[in-house]
Amino acid sequence: MFREVCMRCGKEREGLEVRCKRCGGPFKVEVEFPFSRELRSNFPYIKEWITLGEFNTPTIRWGDIALKMDFLNPTGSYKDRGSVTLISYLKQKGVKSISEDSSGNAGASIAAYGAAAGIEVNIYVPKNARAGKLKQIESYGANVVRVEGTREDVARAAENSGHYYASHVLQPQFRDGIRSLAYEIARDFSPVKTVYLPTSAGTLLLGVYEGFRHMVESGAMREVPRLVAVQTEQVMPLCAKVKGLSYSPPKEVTSLADALVSTNPFLLREMEEVVRNYGDCVVVTEDEIASAWKELARRGILVEYSSATTLAAYMKDRGKDSVLVLTGSGLKVL
Amino acid sequence: MFREVCMRCGKEREGLEVRCKRCGGPFKVEVEFPFSRELRSNFPYIKEWITLGEFNTPTIRWGDIALKMDFLNPTGSYKDRGSVTLISYLKQKGVKSISEDSSGNAGASIAAYGAAAGIEVNIYVPKNARAGKLKQIESYGANVVRVEGTREDVARAAENSGHYYASHVLQPQFRDGIRSLAYEIARDFSPVKTVYLPTSAGTLLLGVYEGFRHMVESGAMREVPRLVAVQTEQVMPLCAKVKGLSYSPPKEVTSLADALVSTNPFLLREMEEVVRNYGDCVVVTEDEIASAWKELARRGILVEYSSATTLAAYMKDRGKDSVLVLTGSGLKVL
Ligand SMILES: [Zn+2]
Ligand SMILES: [Zn+2]
Repeated sequence: MFREVCMRCGKEREGLEVRCKRCGGPFKVEVEFPFSRELRSNFPYIKEWITLGEFNTPTIRWGDIALKMDFLNPTGSYKDRGSVTLISYLKQKGVKSISEDSSGNAGASIAAYGAAAGIEVNIYVPKNARAGKLKQIESYGANVVRVEGTREDVARAAENSGHYYASHVLQPQFRDGIRSLAYEIARDFSPVKTVYLPTSAGTLLLGVYEGFRHMVESGAMREVPRLVAVQTEQVMPLCAKVKGLSYSPPKEVTSLADALVSTNPFLLREMEEVVRNYGDCVVVTEDEIASAWKELARRGILVEYSSATTLAAYMKDRGKDSVLVLTGSGLKVL
Repeated sequence: MFREVCMRCGKEREGLEVRCKRCGGPFKVEVEFPFSRELRSNFPYIKEWITLGEFNTPTIRWGDIALKMDFLNPTGSYKDRGSVTLISYLKQKGVKSISEDSSGNAGASIAAYGAAAGIEVNIYVPKNARAGKLKQIESYGANVVRVEGTREDVARAAENSGHYYASHVLQPQFRDGIRSLAYEIARDFSPVKTVYLPTSAGTLLLGVYEGFRHMVESGAMREVPRLVAVQTEQVMPLCAKVKGLSYSPPKEVTSLADALVSTNPFLLREMEEVVRNYGDCVVVTEDEIASAWKELARRGILVEYSSATTLAAYMKDRGKDSVLVLTGSGLKVL
């Protein structure tokens, strides 16, 4: 009924292993079934949805651009699209306790859906994570585990915790849930020529790409829109690679866009391929982020700074028939 | 095309006056047109919507009860249903600057829609309002004016500010926008027998009642569901009146449910009539609120405490085929 394969060597996933046993690569869900206008039918591997009311967020218009208000998902970020598919799938598979490394939107989202599923959630965070950022995660009843060391040390601790490692970066059912966003964009804003996406670990870019590709292959859309990955000056590994810029990651990310922190993303080569074939990469400065954030707020839209990068990028890039994906709620950063 | 009349003496509204010129009573929109399945068609006085993506929030099921996730409106509360109709209407009328008294969800919502409309917004708050509560309002660019004195002094200052007084309690187009919530509940959850509503100033209760009444009169629904107004031990003027309980309002409201603060609501007699004819009133304790809040969070739903009063009330009242209206986002109170 559905297959999962390694994105690097093509080997099929055997069970719930997190990385390919042959090459260590990440898996993806093979989307081989026809596209359906019934949103949830496009995820045939989910028998029972552990839903909190995700999907079908509003789109509003500013003249000829559209703003996808995806921060109005249940936990305040687009990550809920991935959590609902991942957690529903893991619940079906009988998983009882999971780990994840994220002190931000992904951690909160997985904590919420884990709670809804009755799965024990353990969130691994850096020792210095700010208490305020963890409050949402803790509210859902997840265990927060502080780890000394680098971002990589935290990830390693989560992976080797003894709980099932429900990484939002590696788990194919997480990334796959983001396809839903492409379907909604295509449905609610037509024709869509350009989509601006804040880009860090790559789940948003790759998930949205997969959704559009699916629609095109099913004849539901003419072509994949231009996908513009937006990064900050501080964290621009993808843009540096695509544009051939010199770039050395900072010791500590201090950008306003505090959800865009993947200085060395595991899915970099997969992102690069999508951007080279279907899009572009735009780097925005701190000043541009601040002024885009203010412009949104002064028009009634309160998002996190990471989401405002899309407007900042649009102001420079001015893509035709554009959709800006607003990924995270500003209520989290007040 | 549409009429506004005083709820107490029936006198027609002449223009934009805030209170009836004959008796000082509040106005309401006369809903005399047929109900339409097209949600926005039920507000014929709005020619152009100043929208931020409000309405059509999700409903999820917990067994045989339904949770209306109305905190997923754009500013994180159901108030956006009232702000969108009020602000769109005032914009059409050429109003350029408004005042309002609320340091909470109503203030934030009106600030956001005012910003979207390009109307100057002035929010009057008590001198001791916590800075954290005002951040959202200020983010939208509204002016915050601190006033010494009682809650009533603050309201008086807003009303006499020289700006147009866009009171969410008094303005008929605000209360009227809440009708949309009843239409959605009836559409998404059928049959609905009981609706639990956190009740403070009365806009939610009266607005929802008006929506159901409209559907019944139009033949789109058999009867108005049982409407259960939920109040706290500290702020229970309506329940005290309806149930004949002795009640003296506290000097300062310290309840967890900090959106339920109207100790002496202007619309009390109108609320009383609705509750006597169509529903009931349930008082919940601080412990019950805390435990209901935790139960929601531990199942993945983060709301403000005021919203959790509905679950607390349901646990005692156990109404048949119930909908709990979750009015405000928990992200605001982290
Ligand atoms: Zn492989
Ligand atoms: Zn009157």
